[in-house]
Parts: sequence; C-alpha cells; structure tokens
Amino acid sequence: MTQPLTPERILEAAEEVLRRHGPQKANVVDVARALGVSHGAVYRHFPSKQALREAVTRRWLHEFHATLEPIDDPREWIRTLSAAKRGTARVDPELFATYQALCDEQSAVVDEHVNWLIEQLEAMVGDKGRPLLQATTRFHHPAHVHEWTDPEIERDLDRILDLVLPQN
Amino acid sequence: MTQPLTPERILEAAEEVLRRHGPQKANVVDVARALGVSHGAVYRHFPSKQALREAVTRRWLHEFHATLEPIDDPREWIRTLSAAKRGTARVDPELFATYQALCDEQSAVVDEHVNWLIEQLEAMVGDKGRPLLQATTRFHHPAHVHEWTDPEIERDLDRILDLVLPQN
Repeated sequence: MTQPLTPERILEAAEEVLRRHGPQKANVVDVARALGVSHGAVYRHFPSKQALREAVTRRWLHEFHATLEPIDDPREWIRTLSAAKRGTARVDPELFATYQALCDEQSAVVDEHVNWLIEQLEAMVGDKGRPLLQATTRFHHPAHVHEWTDPEIERDLDRILDLVLPQN
Repeated sequence: MTQPLTPERILEAAEEVLRRHGPQKANVVDVARALGVSHGAVYRHFPSKQALREAVTRRWLHEFHATLEPIDDPREWIRTLSAAKRGTARVDPELFATYQALCDEQSAVVDEHVNWLIEQLEAMVGDKGRPLLQATTRFHHPAHVHEWTDPEIERDLDRILDLVLPQN
C-alpha cells in the first residue's frame, strides 16, 4: 500500500533533495525519484520547479514563525527572533545556506516573511514596528550570518534596543 | 622612457584588471601584462596575490572615505554615507559587485573601514556611534544593495534616525 501523494509529502521530499543536492542542482526529477513517482505526478501539485521552490521556502519560513512564541515585550521579542536565527544557522549551517539561496531568489516570499515580522512588532509598538525591525537588521537578516559569531553580538543588539526602545 | 613601477601604478592596473576579468579570474600575471612588466616586478611591491587584492580593497575604501565630507550633524552624515553607497552601486554596479566580492574575502580591511566609520560618528555622538552605525546597517552595508532601489529607502532611514536621534 502506497501513501497518497500529498503536497506535504512532496514538500518534505523537496527539502530532503535540496539538502542533499544543494539549491543549484536540485530539480523536480530528483524529488519525483525520491518519492517513487513520475515527475508528472509532482507537477500536478506544483505546476513548475519555481512554484515548488517557492512553496518549500514559504513552508520553512512558516515553520520558523511557529517557533517564535508570542511575547508582549518588543525588546524580548527582537532578542528571541535574533537568537532563533543565530541558532538555526549554528545548528545546521548547510541547511541555512540552502534556504538563504532560496530566499535570494524568492523575493515575494521573503517580503511576506518581513511583513509578518513587522506586523508582530506593530501589534506591540505601533508605528515603531517597521523602523524597529529595520534597525536590528544586522541581528536577524541572513546576509549577516558571518557576524553572528562575534562575541559582542548580543551586547551590540542591546545597545541598539537601548537607543530605540529606552527603558524607563 | 618608461614610467617607474610604483605601488600606485600597480594598484591602478589591478583595479582595471579586476573590472575587466572579474574578481574570480583576475590574477597577478594579468596585472603584470597590463603594465608590460614581469610578474616578479609586481611581486617586489606586493608579496602575494592576496596582498595585492587587500591593497586594492583598502585603496578603494580610502577613496570612498575621502568623498565623505566632514559634517558635524550625525543625521546628515549617516544620510550622506547611505546616499554615497547607493550612488556608487547605481553608477557602476559591476565595479560595486567586484568590490563587494573583494570585501567578502578581506574581513580585516572591512573591519578597518567599519571602525573608521564608527570613529567618525563617535566624534559627533560619543558612545552612540557604534549602535548608530549598526542600526542603519540596511542603508549602507553592501549586502543590502538590492533593497536600495526601494522608493521608501530614504523615508525608512529617516524613521530610524527619528527613533535613534530624536530631534528636539
């Protein structure tokens, strides 16, 4: 008995293929082979390689959002966000680099992610949400992953938070 | 009569070779050929390809520093810095990408550049200099070059400056 081919199973297989082959080489034929189906079967759920990569990227970012527990303190939320990104990069740097490459090509999905982050902050600090997220770019944007091993990184973030969100 | 082979002439030739061949392919033999000298003559001034690339990167960043006129207003200085980086990227995107690749491999030279920027700000705002530069990373760090064409970019910077350096 074979399992039905669901979008979720395809996305799991695609993540595994991306991890194994890297973002440049991974293609729909590899994903179909990993699932033991024809590539036509995959295309019935995702009409193009681009659509599949977009869905993989979106799924990964949504999983990341789900790990960010709601906290009503904007300083603590930014610290948690930054620590979560650093942790993801440290625990599995290859997977992080793979998703970094996917994000570089999926600007619409990244915009959704950034807008989601801004909305979370706006719920806490109103209009300050957007500048607050942007002022802490260095601490959560994956382009700065090589700076995250700096032992000063957490103190540097706190120095900015002290300026932007002064505590009474 | 040939001109004497000075470090400056080598650096000028190296910049031209980097521009023509790209940062991956450019090598010392190309630079020597462009100058009509042996590669040994180049190595007498720069002991390795790495040393030459480092010197080219440092020279470019020092030229950039020289274009930043001293202004005693930290908001205006940050705006000028960001506008200068955006301008460089817009006027000659290929050269900008070349130097971006060089900077990625020359972390010590980039650290000098960042420390120089922080010192300029510290002369204006003291301890706030370092967090102020870091809070505006998105607006001058070359990793964000693709965000610089956003029509909101200047307003976004002003929103951060309003938070970090509130005007009375």
